[in-house]
Amino acid sequence: MRSVSVVGIGETKMGKFPERSLRDLILEAGTKAIGDAGIEKERIEALYLGNYNGSYWSLQSHMGPLGSEVLGLGDIPTLRTEGACATGSLAFRQGLMAVAAGFYDVVLVGGVEKMTHRQTETVTTGLASAADADLEVSLGATFPSLFAMIANRYFFEYGNVREQMAVCAVQNHDNALLNPDAQMHKKITVQDVCNGFPVAYPFTVYDCSLVSDGACFVVLAATDVAGEFCKKRLVEVAGSGHAGDAITMAAKKSLTTFTATLGAARQAYEMAGIRPADVDFAEVHDCFTITQIINIEDLGFFPKGRGAAAVAAGRTALDGELPINPSGGLKAKGHPIGCTGLSQIYEAVVQIRGEAGARQVKNAETGLTHNLGGSGATCLVHIFRGR
Amino acid sequence: MRSVSVVGIGETKMGKFPERSLRDLILEAGTKAIGDAGIEKERIEALYLGNYNGSYWSLQSHMGPLGSEVLGLGDIPTLRTEGACATGSLAFRQGLMAVAAGFYDVVLVGGVEKMTHRQTETVTTGLASAADADLEVSLGATFPSLFAMIANRYFFEYGNVREQMAVCAVQNHDNALLNPDAQMHKKITVQDVCNGFPVAYPFTVYDCSLVSDGACFVVLAATDVAGEFCKKRLVEVAGSGHAGDAITMAAKKSLTTFTATLGAARQAYEMAGIRPADVDFAEVHDCFTITQIINIEDLGFFPKGRGAAAVAAGRTALDGELPINPSGGLKAKGHPIGCTGLSQIYEAVVQIRGEAGARQVKNAETGLTHNLGGSGATCLVHIFRGR
Repeated sequence: MRSVSVVGIGETKMGKFPERSLRDLILEAGTKAIGDAGIEKERIEALYLGNYNGSYWSLQSHMGPLGSEVLGLGDIPTLRTEGACATGSLAFRQGLMAVAAGFYDVVLVGGVEKMTHRQTETVTTGLASAADADLEVSLGATFPSLFAMIANRYFFEYGNVREQMAVCAVQNHDNALLNPDAQMHKKITVQDVCNGFPVAYPFTVYDCSLVSDGACFVVLAATDVAGEFCKKRLVEVAGSGHAGDAITMAAKKSLTTFTATLGAARQAYEMAGIRPADVDFAEVHDCFTITQIINIEDLGFFPKGRGAAAVAAGRTALDGELPINPSGGLKAKGHPIGCTGLSQIYEAVVQIRGEAGARQVKNAETGLTHNLGGSGATCLVHIFRGR
Repeated sequence: MRSVSVVGIGETKMGKFPERSLRDLILEAGTKAIGDAGIEKERIEALYLGNYNGSYWSLQSHMGPLGSEVLGLGDIPTLRTEGACATGSLAFRQGLMAVAAGFYDVVLVGGVEKMTHRQTETVTTGLASAADADLEVSLGATFPSLFAMIANRYFFEYGNVREQMAVCAVQNHDNALLNPDAQMHKKITVQDVCNGFPVAYPFTVYDCSLVSDGACFVVLAATDVAGEFCKKRLVEVAGSGHAGDAITMAAKKSLTTFTATLGAARQAYEMAGIRPADVDFAEVHDCFTITQIINIEDLGFFPKGRGAAAVAAGRTALDGELPINPSGGLKAKGHPIGCTGLSQIYEAVVQIRGEAGARQVKNAETGLTHNLGGSGATCLVHIFRGR
């Protein structure tokens, strides 16, 4: 397999943009990424575009050729991927595999979602379709309720970490204050989180990630051709992992460990030839505060049952030993579903290039992104390294 | 790249099954394919699952892990692909590329769609989302109307072939009479087609493909390991091509040639090292009768503007020189969108194995499948050869 690098990145601000269409979002982020790569459009050989649920929220499927038309990419092959909240990383991995194997030298990978134009109930229904429609949603399950069950089980197994867990949200909001692309620029406290509007016990509204519009694109190239056009620091994809699990909660072996994360992380670490301790910073899927806690344990950063204490001790803050979600995460940067995995990768590249400004992680040489779909049924982990 | 072969196939009957869920359809077709391959489930390393619009029609997204759970495939990685009516072939090509490149030795590829449980208007709205929601559908466009424009333009450029075009439907219905999996078992005449219930001039209901439920799965394996378990004749994937085009009709260079077909066909022929004349039979995307005419021209089987005359002369009938759609095609076998591309491949394998019974094509050694999405915005062509 050939080495593959990220040679261009671009994203929109995340937020609520009633006046902007899917086309607008794609155009802005895609144009930025192509421009950042310093590449002529004619060199782009394929488009991989993640979109979770435009089919339902905007009655727009077939997003691949929509993207290639908007960006003027001609008759190149396009693929839309979908795997719930891991949709963006799925697109990334397909593009990565195609370049690594030598099918293409340069591809464009993107993710886009538009959610805020629909009413809350419609957004919730569309999100719930990432769970099992017949066996879960028909019984009233929504994602806050599913992850609330996970949180309660975690409390049962490892003790009530309600206040420590809230620190995830506080830190992510702190980081987002330093990210101009973030949707939420608002400082919060542990007490704000714990006393917030109740959603599903133990979650308040501050434990939950945002509903967002946004798009993010990256240009991937075989490392040995990247030098022909890329003028910025090359960021190599050092590791990639992808594993799955049952879609229904009832079929999972554990509620407090995501099997898919274990598998994807193992593959990515092995491919990169590193251990968790070698990671300098990570973007970790924080759809809910408890998810971030479980994920940083499953990724091997902290022992099982000890993640919340590590967060509360400041070890994952921007100036801690292992900064988590310097971008602000799904919680505060935003969570436009199909875009999220790509936006995590965007942050990894920005950090490794040293372009993160006020939120720059020190010595950011090796970054990890972790993207989870459904209640843990799809997981992708990627590891990036500066060259 | 390694040689890859289809080592197992399974499909449901196509039709209207109000009592059967997406799970039921996946379970039947997937189990049949795994059984046909004679393989233990533990050898399957990844699942590629095409589904067009379960997100809208069944409020079920995230179909990858749904499929792996139903089929008991454990924590393998899964991917849902979507590219309008080419969704199934997109899943196939991703699986093919992954095995050819050596990422996996054995993968399962499937396609599923459930449409008939929704009202006609909802089905039409869901289908229309494969066109541009803002620039086409908002103006009232649906797929019958878009392809009717294509037919009228074809008439303008090459003459009115209304009656000759109708022979596509007649032949596909004839073939479907011999296919037990076909939805429609009904002999029709050219007069039935021309005098049928009008849909969008020049189409009557008999020019239009069916609304269907169905699923189809295939097992793909590296040819050099296939001998370890496959007891049937190996069917090698000799060629694969994938090209695209603008999503909107207005942005296309021509309405009577699909640029994406030209590109995908060129790639597939080149990879297989053959010319169109070397193809013994083909499954060709016939969402409407005019589409089949344009496609058999674009694929190089007949000169531009001469496809309809070739069909009317019986040259594409089951006993003709180049049988087209021996399965009955989208018109009469059925068109469960995400399943269709896989079901075309199913037919290619059945024919090459010599298992097609009453509809067996003579000397079926090399078969081609052609799958088109939207109004020609996504196209995949595959070529299969017996070993």
